[in-house]
Amino acid sequence: MHDRYPTRLHEAAPMMRRPDPVVWGSVDGPFTADEIHDYSAKGFHIEDGLLTPAQVQECWTEFDRLTGDPDVEASGAVVRESNGDAVRSIFAVHRHSPVIDALARTPRILDRARQILGSEVYIHQSRINAMPGMVGTGFGWHSDFETWHAEDGLPTPRALSVSIALTDNFAFNGGLMLMPGAHRTFVPCVGRTPDDNFRESLQRQRVGVPDDDTVFELGYEHGIEQFTGAAGSALFFDSNSMHGSSNNITPYSRANVFLVFNSVHNAPTAPFAAARHRPTYIADLDTTPLTPLPHTVFA
Amino acid sequence: MHDRYPTRLHEAAPMMRRPDPVVWGSVDGPFTADEIHDYSAKGFHIEDGLLTPAQVQECWTEFDRLTGDPDVEASGAVVRESNGDAVRSIFAVHRHSPVIDALARTPRILDRARQILGSEVYIHQSRINAMPGMVGTGFGWHSDFETWHAEDGLPTPRALSVSIALTDNFAFNGGLMLMPGAHRTFVPCVGRTPDDNFRESLQRQRVGVPDDDTVFELGYEHGIEQFTGAAGSALFFDSNSMHGSSNNITPYSRANVFLVFNSVHNAPTAPFAAARHRPTYIADLDTTPLTPLPHTVFA
Repeated sequence: MHDRYPTRLHEAAPMMRRPDPVVWGSVDGPFTADEIHDYSAKGFHIEDGLLTPAQVQECWTEFDRLTGDPDVEASGAVVRESNGDAVRSIFAVHRHSPVIDALARTPRILDRARQILGSEVYIHQSRINAMPGMVGTGFGWHSDFETWHAEDGLPTPRALSVSIALTDNFAFNGGLMLMPGAHRTFVPCVGRTPDDNFRESLQRQRVGVPDDDTVFELGYEHGIEQFTGAAGSALFFDSNSMHGSSNNITPYSRANVFLVFNSVHNAPTAPFAAARHRPTYIADLDTTPLTPLPHTVFA
Repeated sequence: MHDRYPTRLHEAAPMMRRPDPVVWGSVDGPFTADEIHDYSAKGFHIEDGLLTPAQVQECWTEFDRLTGDPDVEASGAVVRESNGDAVRSIFAVHRHSPVIDALARTPRILDRARQILGSEVYIHQSRINAMPGMVGTGFGWHSDFETWHAEDGLPTPRALSVSIALTDNFAFNGGLMLMPGAHRTFVPCVGRTPDDNFRESLQRQRVGVPDDDTVFELGYEHGIEQFTGAAGSALFFDSNSMHGSSNNITPYSRANVFLVFNSVHNAPTAPFAAARHRPTYIADLDTTPLTPLPHTVFA
């Protein structure tokens, strides 16, 4: 397959205009025409109050349970902060938890993903990120798609993430920052992918990130917006959004459920710039379409 | 002199209610009665548009000049980021720069300081902090007064800081966070002051900072507010305010002029918990009252 998004290169290459669309079809769904237009232009959409407080609590309870589950720990899906024992992320939560599986299949989430991607979808990756108070470290600027293409074999950015706030996301506790409009630009990155890169990159990414000059250029062209909102708010964002987060020195933890939806027409091939696929708890290879599950605690 | 604010102790001691006032007198000035009441309750006041864009530019030009001035460099007043050569702070800018001297003596700044401190005032410390884009690291939670008492010999918190934004202070580029009301609580800190502690503490403070449990307790009692505003905005804050800042991964630098006003009735004595005074470019010992300078670029 011809690689239209070459990355992990020997030497720097210019940024390129993304050849693929952002909104992929004309599937009806919960987004209004204006919301679809904004999503296409900015690369993201914030939906306040997607979950009720009781539904947020269900997810929290599940996160607590998963944190203490020895099977989850043994699967390798628990990532800790580099500066201590605090849990940074738990992966594959849709596999380990019927509650998170039901969340992903809630029509007001699933149907939004289908609407933007213009097809049936499945979950490429899911996780709960718990940026603990005082010790949480951020994520530098990056495009998720760059990694999913290089290391997981997704041919195109026909994928999106939903980040659902389980705690209040303030401006000052490490809330996600995005560059609106930068999702239209693909940034080829320099550097070969090390074997088992994911072991380091999930704590701190060094390969597959844009250089500082590129961040300056995109930041001054596009500006920055931040995802803030009460617990239960949700951010839908394009897989090629340029985003990052600061560290969290406040006492307020910032926890979010991440669900990554990929189009069934964008099934993973061999990785474009890595020796082998990442473990399935990071990059699922089962592309069976998700079916709605309307009668749950989330409906 | 009896030490009413014991700190740098051998073992942990409980937080204490501050025995001294926040607003010290009934000197008239630019603050309204409501603003004085709020300052007393929260420990800070934000004044939008204190400087015009042209006045901000004067300060920038002066910062550029000072950065390249070999005499300033030789004086030791230039502090760099620990992770590179970027300038983090230049101290004693009121001594090195007629422009910053004039700024400090502008009636709408000087008279506010006198009004809150209830007396004539002088400059205990001044600096320009330039948190550079991408590489700027924050300041952990701390009270300035704790250090000024322990290392500079200020007997009481009869002092305040003015932070004037030279760049737009967004929520996401390392803007100062404060815990409103926590200025009423003095947090004794554990640990003896190392000799020449300032050499490290100006990059990253390790002694004279509250422990994590205390930050949690104060953070949940008082909440957090952030100083954001366009260039030219100013934050007046009590010397015992609990404050800190995150790192800055955005491309937008955050530069501020800091002016610390101390009451002439609060002149420094011997340090309360250090072997000797810090250099005068960090802690001025000349307590001559500042006189207004009304007819300048800032008037």
